[in-house]
Amino acid sequence: MREYVVAILGATGAVGQRLISELEQSSIPVKKLKLLASKRSAGKKLKFKNQEITVEEAQPDSFNGVDLVLSSAGGAISKKLLPEAVKRGAVCVDNTSAYRMEDDVPLVVPGVNDKELANHHGIIANPNCSTIQMVAALYPIYQRWGIKQIIVSTYQAVSGAGKAAWDEMLNQAQARLNHQDLKAEILPTAADKRHYPMAFNLLPQIDVFEDDGYTHEEWKMIHETKKILLNDQNAGEIKVTATCVRVPIEIGHGETVYFVVKDSSATTAEIQEEIAKTSGLVLQDDPSKQVYPQPLLAAGKRETFVGRIRQDQENDGAFQMWVVADNLLRGAASNTVEIAECLVRDDLVHQTN
Amino acid sequence: MREYVVAILGATGAVGQRLISELEQSSIPVKKLKLLASKRSAGKKLKFKNQEITVEEAQPDSFNGVDLVLSSAGGAISKKLLPEAVKRGAVCVDNTSAYRMEDDVPLVVPGVNDKELANHHGIIANPNCSTIQMVAALYPIYQRWGIKQIIVSTYQAVSGAGKAAWDEMLNQAQARLNHQDLKAEILPTAADKRHYPMAFNLLPQIDVFEDDGYTHEEWKMIHETKKILLNDQNAGEIKVTATCVRVPIEIGHGETVYFVVKDSSATTAEIQEEIAKTSGLVLQDDPSKQVYPQPLLAAGKRETFVGRIRQDQENDGAFQMWVVADNLLRGAASNTVEIAECLVRDDLVHQTN
Repeated sequence: MREYVVAILGATGAVGQRLISELEQSSIPVKKLKLLASKRSAGKKLKFKNQEITVEEAQPDSFNGVDLVLSSAGGAISKKLLPEAVKRGAVCVDNTSAYRMEDDVPLVVPGVNDKELANHHGIIANPNCSTIQMVAALYPIYQRWGIKQIIVSTYQAVSGAGKAAWDEMLNQAQARLNHQDLKAEILPTAADKRHYPMAFNLLPQIDVFEDDGYTHEEWKMIHETKKILLNDQNAGEIKVTATCVRVPIEIGHGETVYFVVKDSSATTAEIQEEIAKTSGLVLQDDPSKQVYPQPLLAAGKRETFVGRIRQDQENDGAFQMWVVADNLLRGAASNTVEIAECLVRDDLVHQTN
Repeated sequence: MREYVVAILGATGAVGQRLISELEQSSIPVKKLKLLASKRSAGKKLKFKNQEITVEEAQPDSFNGVDLVLSSAGGAISKKLLPEAVKRGAVCVDNTSAYRMEDDVPLVVPGVNDKELANHHGIIANPNCSTIQMVAALYPIYQRWGIKQIIVSTYQAVSGAGKAAWDEMLNQAQARLNHQDLKAEILPTAADKRHYPMAFNLLPQIDVFEDDGYTHEEWKMIHETKKILLNDQNAGEIKVTATCVRVPIEIGHGETVYFVVKDSSATTAEIQEEIAKTSGLVLQDDPSKQVYPQPLLAAGKRETFVGRIRQDQENDGAFQMWVVADNLLRGAASNTVEIAECLVRDDLVHQTN
């Protein structure tokens, strides 16, 4: 059995730490694990399967002899270092937006379009967290009835903005409870100029704005959803639009997803059945017992939770649902490691051309 | 000038206290104010214009000699006591859902349909908080271009569930920050069996569920919006659907509103202009400067704040926006007192038949 030298790039971040534990629990035979991060984090020691591993500064030569890179260190680092890793023969699964929309980069949700992995050229992209859980929930519906239109509103947890943003929100919450002023230096996004308090507030900005008034996060959801669902199928048009809102919760993105199916014979009960029998999805949908997805229940889980499925009673073929998943696991680390498992399963951990 | 004997029913609640201060700042000439509440609250003293007023237990005879009742004491109390007030000659503005859908009860958002007040039979209903701010924001758009369809997702503050729910969420937040377990005894709604932690969580249930899987809150938004916009106009059909979600914030409901206009020549810039020039609405819509509505900025204000207006780029005539308002003021006390001001202005504080 082939064993793999694996490197985790960005190993000390909120997602990086989860990449280590997801890899630990995965089916991937790991010969050696390298933990790479910025100079600032080099020298830290982290555990992997009872081994203590010292974090090294990520540099081009760090990838010598590496078979598989799992990357979550920010778009700029990916742009700089992943080509170096590919040049040295590694296959990279990247958790940033750096390569997602490039034509020769598969954008993969395992269980939905992992057959795309066969076409990789060294880099595979992990979709945006809010895209993954929506597409995962919609896919069985898309397969059976087709989908014409998607309108999504997100309720996104602060951990998606990184550990520092998460800490900032918790500090603000404590300040409010102490009747002190809330200091804001990071959220809604470190990349923009103005910062607003997040605790006990709602910020309708995730990532920066485009000139058309949509945020970059909203366009990610629109473009990535189309790329994943329509990739090599002539499935016709899917209209997608999104509003992304950051909410003061720690882990677990919520989404209200309004969708119109092509075959309007679909019923709520049939959609519930399809969700229930799909691997990786958990149906939590019993209003009479107040059963529905909640971020506090989804945190720490790999599945995507779906509930509140019901028809728009004035529009044939239109339905709504409420989708929740752990943005650090389902939306990031678990999806990345599952892509790596598919690569190993299909013997694709090598340069394909 | 006629002066009015006014009674506030439910004077000690979160909305009741705001009714007192809104009445204080209103144009209504108050001859005498009676503060009514449950037996438990009787004897408390509250201030109105430097007077100290003792809260009395609300009973049928409390309304003897009262001209105008502002009521926010819960649906069951309204059902029991408002007919007694009407019998004694008073005109009642009710802030519960008890009478909203009755044919002979005007359901009023001042500035939108206050002409309906002329048809009152003693009781006027204040719409649901999440309905008011959405209809207020949509009305100038509806007037100029017509509206065919509305799809709304709400982000509702816990103060909408009352003071005890609000305190419960703050206590849970402190417990989480102390790494203690979260106790839940009220939310999502005291009226239902199961209770879940709200701090750092999202609960897609407001009010109880109907048999069709929609919550009562969602049906309120659907039916009330149609009643307010379509009341005595032959304006055709408006399709409305809603998903209502409680979020861990204190004051200020957020809403993502997707709407399709009839006249698809409308542009984002024209919609922004209409919002900006409408009294009671504040346009906060400059993505380049990160200007958009936020609950922490709306709390304590009477206006409805509108931003993130943009076209769905794949659907002609479809737009999205983000609407925020103080649910206790705009969504309750301010709307109630503005209705009373309209009644006084139009000399309608008397039984009309």
